[in-house]
Amino acid sequence: MNRRIRYGMVGGGPGAFIGAVHRMAINLDERADLVAGCFSSNEDKNLQCGHKYQVPEDRIYSNYKIMAQEEAKRDDKIDFVAIVTPNNTHYEICKAFIENGINIFCEKPLCFTVEQALELEALAKEKDLLFGVGYTYPGYPMVKFAKELIEKGEIGDVINVNAEYLQDWLIDEISDGSNDTVKLSGWRTNPAISGGSNCVGDIGTHIENTVSYMTGLKVKRIRSIFDRFGMELEVNANMLVEFDNGCHGVFSCSQVCAGHYNGLVVRIFGNKGAIEWVQEEPNTLKVTPKGEPIKIYNRATGCITGRAVELNHIPSGHPEGLVFAMTNNYTSFIDAVIAKADGNKDYVTDYSTIEAGVSGVKFIHAAIESDAKDSAWVELP
Amino acid sequence: MNRRIRYGMVGGGPGAFIGAVHRMAINLDERADLVAGCFSSNEDKNLQCGHKYQVPEDRIYSNYKIMAQEEAKRDDKIDFVAIVTPNNTHYEICKAFIENGINIFCEKPLCFTVEQALELEALAKEKDLLFGVGYTYPGYPMVKFAKELIEKGEIGDVINVNAEYLQDWLIDEISDGSNDTVKLSGWRTNPAISGGSNCVGDIGTHIENTVSYMTGLKVKRIRSIFDRFGMELEVNANMLVEFDNGCHGVFSCSQVCAGHYNGLVVRIFGNKGAIEWVQEEPNTLKVTPKGEPIKIYNRATGCITGRAVELNHIPSGHPEGLVFAMTNNYTSFIDAVIAKADGNKDYVTDYSTIEAGVSGVKFIHAAIESDAKDSAWVELP
Amino acid sequence: MNRRIRYGMVGGGPGAFIGAVHRMAINLDERADLVAGCFSSNEDKNLQCGHKYQVPEDRIYSNYKIMAQEEAKRDDKIDFVAIVTPNNTHYEICKAFIENGINIFCEKPLCFTVEQALELEALAKEKDLLFGVGYTYPGYPMVKFAKELIEKGEIGDVINVNAEYLQDWLIDEISDGSNDTVKLSGWRTNPAISGGSNCVGDIGTHIENTVSYMTGLKVKRIRSIFDRFGMELEVNANMLVEFDNGCHGVFSCSQVCAGHYNGLVVRIFGNKGAIEWVQEEPNTLKVTPKGEPIKIYNRATGCITGRAVELNHIPSGHPEGLVFAMTNNYTSFIDAVIAKADGNKDYVTDYSTIEAGVSGVKFIHAAIESDAKDSAWVELP
Amino acid sequence: MNRRIRYGMVGGGPGAFIGAVHRMAINLDERADLVAGCFSSNEDKNLQCGHKYQVPEDRIYSNYKIMAQEEAKRDDKIDFVAIVTPNNTHYEICKAFIENGINIFCEKPLCFTVEQALELEALAKEKDLLFGVGYTYPGYPMVKFAKELIEKGEIGDVINVNAEYLQDWLIDEISDGSNDTVKLSGWRTNPAISGGSNCVGDIGTHIENTVSYMTGLKVKRIRSIFDRFGMELEVNANMLVEFDNGCHGVFSCSQVCAGHYNGLVVRIFGNKGAIEWVQEEPNTLKVTPKGEPIKIYNRATGCITGRAVELNHIPSGHPEGLVFAMTNNYTSFIDAVIAKADGNKDYVTDYSTIEAGVSGVKFIHAAIESDAKDSAWVELP
Repeated sequence: MNRRIRYGMVGGGPGAFIGAVHRMAINLDERADLVAGCFSSNEDKNLQCGHKYQVPEDRIYSNYKIMAQEEAKRDDKIDFVAIVTPNNTHYEICKAFIENGINIFCEKPLCFTVEQALELEALAKEKDLLFGVGYTYPGYPMVKFAKELIEKGEIGDVINVNAEYLQDWLIDEISDGSNDTVKLSGWRTNPAISGGSNCVGDIGTHIENTVSYMTGLKVKRIRSIFDRFGMELEVNANMLVEFDNGCHGVFSCSQVCAGHYNGLVVRIFGNKGAIEWVQEEPNTLKVTPKGEPIKIYNRATGCITGRAVELNHIPSGHPEGLVFAMTNNYTSFIDAVIAKADGNKDYVTDYSTIEAGVSGVKFIHAAIESDAKDSAWVELP
Repeated sequence: MNRRIRYGMVGGGPGAFIGAVHRMAINLDERADLVAGCFSSNEDKNLQCGHKYQVPEDRIYSNYKIMAQEEAKRDDKIDFVAIVTPNNTHYEICKAFIENGINIFCEKPLCFTVEQALELEALAKEKDLLFGVGYTYPGYPMVKFAKELIEKGEIGDVINVNAEYLQDWLIDEISDGSNDTVKLSGWRTNPAISGGSNCVGDIGTHIENTVSYMTGLKVKRIRSIFDRFGMELEVNANMLVEFDNGCHGVFSCSQVCAGHYNGLVVRIFGNKGAIEWVQEEPNTLKVTPKGEPIKIYNRATGCITGRAVELNHIPSGHPEGLVFAMTNNYTSFIDAVIAKADGNKDYVTDYSTIEAGVSGVKFIHAAIESDAKDSAWVELP
Repeated sequence: MNRRIRYGMVGGGPGAFIGAVHRMAINLDERADLVAGCFSSNEDKNLQCGHKYQVPEDRIYSNYKIMAQEEAKRDDKIDFVAIVTPNNTHYEICKAFIENGINIFCEKPLCFTVEQALELEALAKEKDLLFGVGYTYPGYPMVKFAKELIEKGEIGDVINVNAEYLQDWLIDEISDGSNDTVKLSGWRTNPAISGGSNCVGDIGTHIENTVSYMTGLKVKRIRSIFDRFGMELEVNANMLVEFDNGCHGVFSCSQVCAGHYNGLVVRIFGNKGAIEWVQEEPNTLKVTPKGEPIKIYNRATGCITGRAVELNHIPSGHPEGLVFAMTNNYTSFIDAVIAKADGNKDYVTDYSTIEAGVSGVKFIHAAIESDAKDSAWVELP
Repeated sequence: MNRRIRYGMVGGGPGAFIGAVHRMAINLDERADLVAGCFSSNEDKNLQCGHKYQVPEDRIYSNYKIMAQEEAKRDDKIDFVAIVTPNNTHYEICKAFIENGINIFCEKPLCFTVEQALELEALAKEKDLLFGVGYTYPGYPMVKFAKELIEKGEIGDVINVNAEYLQDWLIDEISDGSNDTVKLSGWRTNPAISGGSNCVGDIGTHIENTVSYMTGLKVKRIRSIFDRFGMELEVNANMLVEFDNGCHGVFSCSQVCAGHYNGLVVRIFGNKGAIEWVQEEPNTLKVTPKGEPIKIYNRATGCITGRAVELNHIPSGHPEGLVFAMTNNYTSFIDAVIAKADGNKDYVTDYSTIEAGVSGVKFIHAAIESDAKDSAWVELP
């Protein structure tokens, strides 16, 4: 099970934040070697990056299509490709690799339209490929533990959800009077690259993903209000949410809330207790069975059970952070890739799959539509 | 300015929580003596309470109307009456005392309908009386300090509001299958006594009050969803809010969120910074000017300025709690009563006045109406 | 049991912090009326204070000895006297009231020398009087709950103690180069008034008191180091402590630790778990049975048991602070005074008694002696 | 500067915690490739590990001495060796690699005796080799930032230090009555392998290292008390400390404090402010200039300055943990190795050097000696 496999990367050139994170995440468990890549559309940067990561010269590709085709022909072809490019390119790149029979691990959001998302899902299924999506937060052990406790009935039936994802990195753009969209935010607030949503597409979608993961509930319909403050795309959004079990909640996401850096906070309230997880303190989980004291569980301590126990890299009290969450996702994905390659049919997919990716695109689109209609209820397709 | 005055109380008999709190609050500053009362409709309890508080026998009244009339005739009549009865009685009792020319400090919500509220406001104005309403939280020094910082522009223009008031004391009623409305919640979930709302009328209204107090903003319109879980009145409510400056936010209130006891949390986000105040840790205030570290201010330390400086009873680090906040409101009210009695025309009203009471009733009614219309936008009248 | 009694006060004139706190504390439960006093050696201030608190003219005394003698003669004499003067006067004043047969509630430290302390203890016993000492912190419900849990064996045998009491109010005196002892610190850093210790006598003694109260352990011997930074008395002290069960710990107290206002923190470690209480967040208690999650108990919630349940004035989540802790001590003291007066022999003394006062004086003296001997071990007498 | 180099490892076989952490740490920055190793004295495990990490067959050594000699002969020899074996072997292994001219990065404590430590220091100097020691905590960006602020005078002169390192992983051994030394604690409580100290040697030494790093102060003398609770070596220790600037403090370390997992907490108090860093929340730093609010700095935000800015791998709010701190140390070490190899004479050594290692051994020995003498003052040699 622990053998090493090969992967390629599209995107992740010099200066790209998320590509580096993916490489670090994979490196931690040393389960896959980077052997091919198309890192940048700038050929110098592409080569520079390929050399830095010791990718053989002939597997540094200047074009992702060629990469997909050429890799597909090799005996020692890549076992999967990590796609870490801007949002507007995901659809085409994914399609190219699927068509060439290569497993995919793609950043979120999966693509722009629900149609594209469903098409990719269908194609991947047709080609019988594994498809991971970069929803990182379910990779945290304490999120796994939260899911397990909720499944076991520890908090009873979910009756209320209060979740938020607050950042402040775009506040200068709305406070200095300039509103120069591209200054700080780069492509994220450019509709041509980012799609119809900035804030919800970038971070709001993680709320939907993490809440659904923890609770098993699906968002049924939402009312959303976007705030743009003079920008082309929203940088702040508040939503009323109804879930498929009939319960309600609020989701808030923002890139202009001072003093919040990567503040994903998920609070799930049940009729027998409550659970709270805070991404900036990811090694703990707050659980309150009704009538009992608030309990703070710490990662890797003796009172943790289930899948979370298997995902520790270092002992309790030694903080593990975001990259380890991504490592856990990748390692699970790599396990599945190997199991599948070995003909093992009942492999486990303990990472965000394309279903999560499709769900995310539906959520983003419902949010955009609701905002456009003065926060009318919009059902998820 | 520091002379002692006289007050009476309606309600607050044995076992009544809030009446005792009012008495403790007034006792702390020793600025008013309880000399008259109609504490309970049960005559035995009424007398018992009167004797306990050393009220003269002839000023223990069995009926609030007689109390208003008799007190009005005395030379040493009460300077104000504290009304701490259940919601459904506020309107009639307030009216009786106003008609007899007695200043009022009444618990919230002020009354059931907007019409009643406006009538009381007009009557009090006509009789030139002072009228305080029991919105306690602006009495906390750190809430005063938050207001001052926002007024000074410390966080710039308000762009987003996230506020909540979560409790869990009714969770047993929705989780044990019995749904016996009166068991724990008493009159609060009984529409006849509580009006058309339980949770919003009891605690949600404090969110509106505290946010408006801190920011100076008014709620313009809301979308609200009530959850009843089989009870007659709501025990959980989530809202989208639009303020008169065009910014948005979410309000959540609940009596069924495990692990939350009296969790009023107000977060105000501006385009130059953010402020957060947490009622369960009321002696601190979190302020984050954009681009700077998060700052934790502590009550009664050298870095606090303005009105908050005048409201400390004990040094920094020695926790003051809810009762002190109410003391501050009462002492400000008593100062105003004395100043007005002395013919001082420019007295200050640093407590929640009847305008806040009217505003609260409007808010509660808009919430009820929006919920009834599938969370349609409802403007506050 | 709930009848009201009469008390007098020595000290507590205008501007005196602690006297006002005692009056507020007694006022909250309305169990005793202030009917006599000797508030200040300045006659104007004495009268001003007496009038403000509506003390009858003939019971505003210019001299505590006369007060003790005159009160003793009255049929309606005070049931107890609250002594809230500077440290150097406690001994003489206590003695005068004991000799006149009046129950005492005196601020800490009880007096200057162990001999004086033992003499007061013997005298009070001889006269069969009740004697409370102003160690406030055991009055907090969550400190009571900690004591109960430890007694029940929840954390097993105590194996380590880590406690501190950090403030910063004297930091300006050591940082601005002036070292003008009286500027900020008033009499506290003046040996003539404060005795041989400032910081340990003022706050360090609370560590000893609170730890002993919670655990039932007695300090056996200590090593202490005082830091004066140019002042006459210490403003910072660190200690190694050995308890009578053989376990060890550290005590730290300081008035020059920036960012700490009234930071009494007590952590008791047992071989089966740990307990932590933080005075600045006094409504919660952190308990960790080994192998279990950390548990946060909240005051007045359903999971609290024992004596702590009886001491709530307002519901959970509504913060109670320091004054309520003192109220609890006074109310227990008043209950004992009444019970004793009524001839009830098995009254309870749930407040810090003179034994705690004597213990405190012993501790302070051992600390002074150890510091003088290069932190040699000094046993408590 | 960014070229990749080669390293070998001694220790770190299957199941060894710390070896895996070192490999993960190095992998994150991809600056060195593992090309040689002697992972275990068990030949099967040694081979298994070598194969797993794709070490060439001929560079999987069964003996560290042979490894040192053989590697020294190669043209493509390792640029440094990481030594991650139990404490009792460090001295001999370090010596073998120094004698063969190979740079070293060795786990702490460096060795057993001060003589050995000084010998290694002298040898390394004689051979002109770089020698890093595994004191990880200075690698955290916020510890760097603390050091910078203290150097800049942000908190003035250091006047008091309060630091602790509390864990609970050995509590079962002292609470279940068995005291079976080897059960949980393995070699750590076995004097033959661990040396004369368990708890101080394992974690207490990190307190001395981190405090010295942050403040630039040296421990001058200590009083220490060890608690063994029936074990052969101490599992709990409290100390009074005097620094070379004359200020005092307390250090506490423990492996039996329930509810503490890896609780290194360092609080430095100056006459102009205070700094606090908590290892379990390593991405923030608490700074309180006197008279100002408490400031919470977050890693990778715009208000951080100096060296800490260069050490971020992911944006603010995305937690980085312990492994990243070690990565920072290794990358600095690798930079120095390359610079030195390139003949650059003014390379920077921003990692814990052998001086820190020697200092640690002195501290541990003073602690052992003081405890043996009833906590007498013992000066560090």
